Amino acid sequence: MRIAILGCGNVGSALVGILQDRADALAVQSGARFEIAGIAVNDLSATRPPHVPVELLTADAQRLVADPSVDLVVELIGGLVPAEELVRTALKAGKPVVTANKALLASPEGVQLRHLADERGVDLLYEAAVAGAIPLVRALRESLTGERIHRVMGIVNGTTNFILTKMSEQGADYADVLAEAQALGLAERDPTADVEGFDAAAKAAILAGVAFGYDVAGDEVMREGITAIRAVDVEFADRFGYVVKLLAIVERTGEDALSVRVHPAMVPKSHPLAGVRDAFNAVFIEGEAAGELMLYGQGAGGLPTASAVVGDLIDATRNFLAGASAPAPDRQPAHLLPESDLQTQYYISLDVIDRSGVLATVTKAFGDNNVSIRSMEQEGYAGEARLLFVTHVAREGDIQATLQALSELDIVEQIGGVMRIVGDPG
Amino acid sequence: MRIAILGCGNVGSALVGILQDRADALAVQSGARFEIAGIAVNDLSATRPPHVPVELLTADAQRLVADPSVDLVVELIGGLVPAEELVRTALKAGKPVVTANKALLASPEGVQLRHLADERGVDLLYEAAVAGAIPLVRALRESLTGERIHRVMGIVNGTTNFILTKMSEQGADYADVLAEAQALGLAERDPTADVEGFDAAAKAAILAGVAFGYDVAGDEVMREGITAIRAVDVEFADRFGYVVKLLAIVERTGEDALSVRVHPAMVPKSHPLAGVRDAFNAVFIEGEAAGELMLYGQGAGGLPTASAVVGDLIDATRNFLAGASAPAPDRQPAHLLPESDLQTQYYISLDVIDRSGVLATVTKAFGDNNVSIRSMEQEGYAGEARLLFVTHVAREGDIQATLQALSELDIVEQIGGVMRIVGDPG
Repeated sequence: MRIAILGCGNVGSALVGILQDRADALAVQSGARFEIAGIAVNDLSATRPPHVPVELLTADAQRLVADPSVDLVVELIGGLVPAEELVRTALKAGKPVVTANKALLASPEGVQLRHLADERGVDLLYEAAVAGAIPLVRALRESLTGERIHRVMGIVNGTTNFILTKMSEQGADYADVLAEAQALGLAERDPTADVEGFDAAAKAAILAGVAFGYDVAGDEVMREGITAIRAVDVEFADRFGYVVKLLAIVERTGEDALSVRVHPAMVPKSHPLAGVRDAFNAVFIEGEAAGELMLYGQGAGGLPTASAVVGDLIDATRNFLAGASAPAPDRQPAHLLPESDLQTQYYISLDVIDRSGVLATVTKAFGDNNVSIRSMEQEGYAGEARLLFVTHVAREGDIQATLQALSELDIVEQIGGVMRIVGDPG
Repeated sequence: MRIAILGCGNVGSALVGILQDRADALAVQSGARFEIAGIAVNDLSATRPPHVPVELLTADAQRLVADPSVDLVVELIGGLVPAEELVRTALKAGKPVVTANKALLASPEGVQLRHLADERGVDLLYEAAVAGAIPLVRALRESLTGERIHRVMGIVNGTTNFILTKMSEQGADYADVLAEAQALGLAERDPTADVEGFDAAAKAAILAGVAFGYDVAGDEVMREGITAIRAVDVEFADRFGYVVKLLAIVERTGEDALSVRVHPAMVPKSHPLAGVRDAFNAVFIEGEAAGELMLYGQGAGGLPTASAVVGDLIDATRNFLAGASAPAPDRQPAHLLPESDLQTQYYISLDVIDRSGVLATVTKAFGDNNVSIRSMEQEGYAGEARLLFVTHVAREGDIQATLQALSELDIVEQIGGVMRIVGDPG
């Protein structure tokens, strides 16, 4: 089985190492010996680990993919250009593709590539694109394929989970922990893709396809990052029995409708997702018959990601040799729930003037907008008070109207933290 | 695809319900419509849920399996007789078998059946036999097939995890919680199979086969139950930062050697397994490239187990239609590590006479047997003291020699709790 590897960064060089070290075991498992036909790179002269065979490097990825002796393509370049064109070329030539490229898969072009693979009956496998080493995509596509899934929600971005874990365990501020994460190499110098939820949104879009067969692109995903979270909100969450996590949520909201979203959420401490610390990932799945499942592991890193690529490589090879391809979901265009129709619980913190009658005025604003309060705490300061509310399940549109009404009250000095609550009995 | 269902208890009737309710979706996923050819039961006149079609019931399982129109057999009878004979008949006729029968799979006969399936290239799938709805077997057999796995350890018995959770969270005694579990239907009237670790040992044996390709039978598994655990040990565990869990552990201890065991263990609270509460199951996997993974979910119950059976049914059907079978591990006889060579940390609690020089005498017994102490706590009572030790990693044989030496000291009044510690940096 001659494979072309496109890209030779952390994941690519880890993959080359595994293919060398585990050659015999992989041959037994896949039914064929893997032979690296070539490794396409941008810069032939860059420094690489000594185990990467220099004689296999090439700058001409297009030619490598088109080489008739190449049976299978592993795409580890990332981004849309030139990855999209290369993957398309491979699929059209009937060559299975294994990719870790979440940006590509979550783009409208990526949706088209998935359709192309289905039509041609050629494998396009991407276990490594969501939650790294966690065998999530295969679990959803194979083990749970007969399952009616209600909701998939996950911690799918290690950087933000590291930041939120430190904020929670050390009472630290967002900016300080971000700086620490950058110093440790866990956050990019420009952290936008992680902290604003773009990375998680791409993964949510891919999960909508795998778990529900819906075609969703990353930019269709409702998205809110973690930059506005204050240390004090994390502390209040703790006091109420919650932990703050950035969640990617794909939820069936009707026979034909889906809510796909990324936002910070308060998760009850007793929920399995609450215990997922540092840069680890985990995905919680709720199915009709299977009940609650969670898959946990390393979401990033060269070796873990390469491990997921190897699983796909074996799968694609076995299918290729059998003349088959992996099962494809019954794909359909997505009917996405309008953001204002989302139903969830909320935490809201308000700074108000400490005056009699304030509570009545404030709670009236909730009631007027059909938002029912589940619990309230009041803290007094000199002349001021802070009110902490947890609501029952309410419509997002009603919550927004409530916040608007509250902001117009002169007794409300500031609307502090506002956060959705997920995973509670309600 | 005509399927024979053997057994119609909780799992069987849940399976019939899923096959009815999700018929269209299952046909899309598997490539064939499922048709129930017959349901073999012991007692034709027993009361069953109304959705089970009475006209499909038969008391002649052997005839149903041999029926040439039957393509696939689902075995949900449990136990060895007559399940073994029925499964063998099906496999010999080239009919794929899906089973949830852990007792059969972990028996020497079950090992032979797995070999028979491999030789004939016929699927024998058993996702439901270990950890219920958790897609563990497929993850190990497919996603992680290229991975060099170091250790698999899991909470695979819901009854004992429920008991240990209550002991830990309520400070309750074993006997009281067992009675509660029995009242709730979570423990059998004769709880031996669960509380003495026989059920978990069968699952450990199956995992040794799936994760490492080693042929191990349940009665070869080193086994220790939870009946000797005292409330006070659970409390001490908590104070030292641990939670007590009954673990099934399969660990590579050399190039060709495996330790397969079931015993209670103190697990650090920060370990993902520590947060697995009540009757839930979870399996923690440590791989060379993938790093740490954990899969969590419901380990028992009609619907969750039936959900795992359905995943296998789809898999077996797709393979059957493609003329293929699921990948089989490279099986080999197991070289099991002798119990005395096991290396682990220990917690030991001693009641001693409170007299000067006692600590020196006691610690000398540890040192004389090559056991190094990591931490010690002393509690005084009137004329007595309790010493709590946590050791560094030590040989099991040396620990047993230490315990023997301690028991011979006249200043030692009682050796209280003795428990292995797992998952600690050491």
